[in-house]
Amino acid sequence: MKETTTLYHERLAFQPVLPLALRELTQLKAVPLEEASTTISDAELQKLFPHTWKQGIVTFLAQPEVVHRPQRVGVVLSGGQAAGGHNVITGLYDALVKLHPDSRLFGFLGGATGLIDNEAIEITQDLLTEYRNQGGFDIIGSGRAKVETEEQMQAAEKTVKDLRLTGLLIIGGDDSNTNAAVLAEYFLASGCDVNVVGVPKTIDGDLKNEHIEASFGFDTACKIFSELIGNICRDTFSAKKYYHFIKLMGRSASHIALECALQTHANMTLISEEIADKGMTLQQITTEICDMICRRAEMGKNFGVLLIPEGVIEFIPEFKDLITELNDLLAKGGEDLKALEAMSSAQDKVRFVSRQLYEDAKNCFVSIPESIQHEMLLDRDPHGNVQVSKIETEKLLLEAVRKELHRRKVLGEYVGKFSYQTHFFGYEGRSAFPSNFDAQYCYALGQVAALLVDSNMTGYMTCVGNLVNDVEQWNIKGIPLSSMMVMEKRHGKPTPVIKKTLVDPKGKAFQLFENHREQWKLEDDYRYPGPVQFFGPREISNNTTLSLRLERQ
Amino acid sequence: MKETTTLYHERLAFQPVLPLALRELTQLKAVPLEEASTTISDAELQKLFPHTWKQGIVTFLAQPEVVHRPQRVGVVLSGGQAAGGHNVITGLYDALVKLHPDSRLFGFLGGATGLIDNEAIEITQDLLTEYRNQGGFDIIGSGRAKVETEEQMQAAEKTVKDLRLTGLLIIGGDDSNTNAAVLAEYFLASGCDVNVVGVPKTIDGDLKNEHIEASFGFDTACKIFSELIGNICRDTFSAKKYYHFIKLMGRSASHIALECALQTHANMTLISEEIADKGMTLQQITTEICDMICRRAEMGKNFGVLLIPEGVIEFIPEFKDLITELNDLLAKGGEDLKALEAMSSAQDKVRFVSRQLYEDAKNCFVSIPESIQHEMLLDRDPHGNVQVSKIETEKLLLEAVRKELHRRKVLGEYVGKFSYQTHFFGYEGRSAFPSNFDAQYCYALGQVAALLVDSNMTGYMTCVGNLVNDVEQWNIKGIPLSSMMVMEKRHGKPTPVIKKTLVDPKGKAFQLFENHREQWKLEDDYRYPGPVQFFGPREISNNTTLSLRLERQ
Repeated sequence: MKETTTLYHERLAFQPVLPLALRELTQLKAVPLEEASTTISDAELQKLFPHTWKQGIVTFLAQPEVVHRPQRVGVVLSGGQAAGGHNVITGLYDALVKLHPDSRLFGFLGGATGLIDNEAIEITQDLLTEYRNQGGFDIIGSGRAKVETEEQMQAAEKTVKDLRLTGLLIIGGDDSNTNAAVLAEYFLASGCDVNVVGVPKTIDGDLKNEHIEASFGFDTACKIFSELIGNICRDTFSAKKYYHFIKLMGRSASHIALECALQTHANMTLISEEIADKGMTLQQITTEICDMICRRAEMGKNFGVLLIPEGVIEFIPEFKDLITELNDLLAKGGEDLKALEAMSSAQDKVRFVSRQLYEDAKNCFVSIPESIQHEMLLDRDPHGNVQVSKIETEKLLLEAVRKELHRRKVLGEYVGKFSYQTHFFGYEGRSAFPSNFDAQYCYALGQVAALLVDSNMTGYMTCVGNLVNDVEQWNIKGIPLSSMMVMEKRHGKPTPVIKKTLVDPKGKAFQLFENHREQWKLEDDYRYPGPVQFFGPREISNNTTLSLRLERQ
Repeated sequence: MKETTTLYHERLAFQPVLPLALRELTQLKAVPLEEASTTISDAELQKLFPHTWKQGIVTFLAQPEVVHRPQRVGVVLSGGQAAGGHNVITGLYDALVKLHPDSRLFGFLGGATGLIDNEAIEITQDLLTEYRNQGGFDIIGSGRAKVETEEQMQAAEKTVKDLRLTGLLIIGGDDSNTNAAVLAEYFLASGCDVNVVGVPKTIDGDLKNEHIEASFGFDTACKIFSELIGNICRDTFSAKKYYHFIKLMGRSASHIALECALQTHANMTLISEEIADKGMTLQQITTEICDMICRRAEMGKNFGVLLIPEGVIEFIPEFKDLITELNDLLAKGGEDLKALEAMSSAQDKVRFVSRQLYEDAKNCFVSIPESIQHEMLLDRDPHGNVQVSKIETEKLLLEAVRKELHRRKVLGEYVGKFSYQTHFFGYEGRSAFPSNFDAQYCYALGQVAALLVDSNMTGYMTCVGNLVNDVEQWNIKGIPLSSMMVMEKRHGKPTPVIKKTLVDPKGKAFQLFENHREQWKLEDDYRYPGPVQFFGPREISNNTTLSLRLERQ
């Protein structure tokens, strides 16, 4: 018998509140939402999604004498962990057996690989007993694979047929939901009668749009990071000794950094999207940071907190160029890569690569610290690409800041003392106990997924809306996955994808940040969110992110 | 008006429960505890503490018609932040004015420096309104200075006289409480009528003994670190991709690492004291880690979590030697230091230093990664000592592990894939909202401090005991600081110090760890403590550390 914590048991016993819209579950049937047709105008997409491009948004209405047949549903957890994944599955399971007691649920092991290889376990009431309202994806594990090649598609179809699935749930981010859309089309084309449903998951918060208000896991991750950042703000405000450079997980979009900035009022927060918009160079960013440090030093303050989105480096023009050039130069199978791999000394590699780069990229490459040059050359992904997430961006910035401060000190423009600490928050926030918000949101998402399958709807994303209001008032819908598609160049060819939603510089969240950031730079207006609470006053235990409230209230 | 969080307000409103022993405050007076005399037998200490070595433990009893005179008390926060510092001050303030409404409290700014320079603010009810049950030390700030030289002693005495203080509270760790003992003696010798009282503070948990059950801040810090470690355990158990090397703050003792191991069942935890006891070399530690990784790889598991106490490096024999030799070699003002400082290249410095070291230290120095060699030479404290806390121990271990795994792979003894992430948790846990335990413990400590001053007791440490029981049942005492003293060589001369209490390999906490660690290595028996809760079931919101329960129950 595993030894567990009291909180673990308390959370197992937690019963997510159901939106009123889900309470008469067995009477619900999907109906088209008249006012919101979402058919796609893009001809290319119409060609790629011949069966699903015409789909409209559906909602669910109580109808007399709805007949439910037993369902056999498979579920895939795809990509990085996000708090609430287990609750999607419990919500799905509970709804399936409520709709028909003979329904069965299967979980594919290790992400889409489990679907391709037909490695699955049956998910039962018993099994779920240990996972209700718990963090992690460990019930079936997750993986980064997609069902992409024709061979993989056929394998997935075989699995679906072998298990006689009527529904297939893909819980994942933009790429995985794109994959769900493609699969839905594929199965329709091949006459395989399974309903594919996507669920919006990512701590990054970039899978959202007009209808989808939030991806699950964002709430919990932001709360945990904000707790820690708030603690560090209070610590540095007490010790008055260090600048803390805090890198935050989130590959492309800066939603996490922005939410944490609003929650903690850290002295400075880099927003990747703004950096790209303004075309800011590393030198300009460095100047801005150093200007703040110098002004604070003049006030006698040699401490502060900076938030850095993990993906920022890809938004700085010269690094973007550098990364692109490196990826081209050292593409898998190329001559240059072979030459590079034959070299034993890191210095030789750096010299060799520098010679091949164009002026701007070269200047950028030679200006960065040696350790980061090595990281860019040595840590490459299976496609030969630079692994941006492995670049220690916070140290890169730090080195640039130290150099610039030294220059200013020599000139007498800076009189402070610069000491620092670096941090990276990411893994701490992905598999935590889901906040009450994520627990309830995910449970509802799972129930909506069951309804979509039950109503024979394929190629849909589950949608639970009106999230800033009490759970009882949340509404439920199904949004056609095809309606979220755009064409983008991927690996050189036009590909249908669900676009990541980046931080909107005109959005209310960014505007609030912009209106206060000068004040936060100099005044120590720190805000301390504290740890996620599951009990106590509802304003604390059931609150949502500020970003969500600003966007939707 | 500062924008604050709902939790901030809820915590301001939280009223710490008072031990029954403190409820009739105005009737209490210190009385000697007959059965526990603690006078010191060491002749040398008797000579150094002629006025206080004979003191015995006191407790407090209700007496009829106790007369209280107004007190003027100064308070110093010393050293690193620990959750609950503000509550010591609110407890002290509330008790002082309850004992006599004309009493006044002064806070010295920036630690002992404020005492030496007489930089103080008056602490009032109004001021305290914002600090009740809040994290950080920012009400008056903290500092690392001690009152050491004769000149500083005189300056402190002048401050005490200028402010007409009747009491002086030093809130700090072992060194600061040693300093409090010395000050108490000094003031008695010079006829300065002020009562010096020490309060046990340190997240490291190493300031405890027969009477002092816990230093404050340990509880909150361990809970926060355990929350994060638990989250990472669940994440890696879901993703099955990484070994997480997690370094934990705590300079000498491994109490934090041990408590976190018991709370989370991480796969392996290094305990510095055990490493020193067994005289384990870096190679032996590396072998043990790699043995675990290889065994897990054979089970198909290429993931796990390792906890590393920050100070471990000083307990590894060859590093201890190396650090001592480096400190001697590069002592401030020496020729070698000058020579070193004249060199511009880091490589030259490393070569120069290697030549001067003895065989063992030299072998150790040349075997470690370049970046860590540089850290050891470049980052030196004001005394010229190696800054052990700046050495990236987790990376040092990681490099050693990578090398060894590579060796085994070549030999065919290891078939796994080794990917890793490193973390350092420390600053996140020092200035957090104090847990209910720390909030109530500190509030009681502050009240006991007021009683000691009121009873004209000097050279005492506040003591609140029976902590594993409900707050109501906690007992209160004063322990003579002199009774905790031992003589130790510091900077080459015998010095009275309060000894740090290290992890006891025969203690119940370590025994529990030892009995389970083989199981935790291979089975993924992770335990998820989750975030600190302030509300909800008392078993969750008011629990103590497991170490405390094991030691005292």
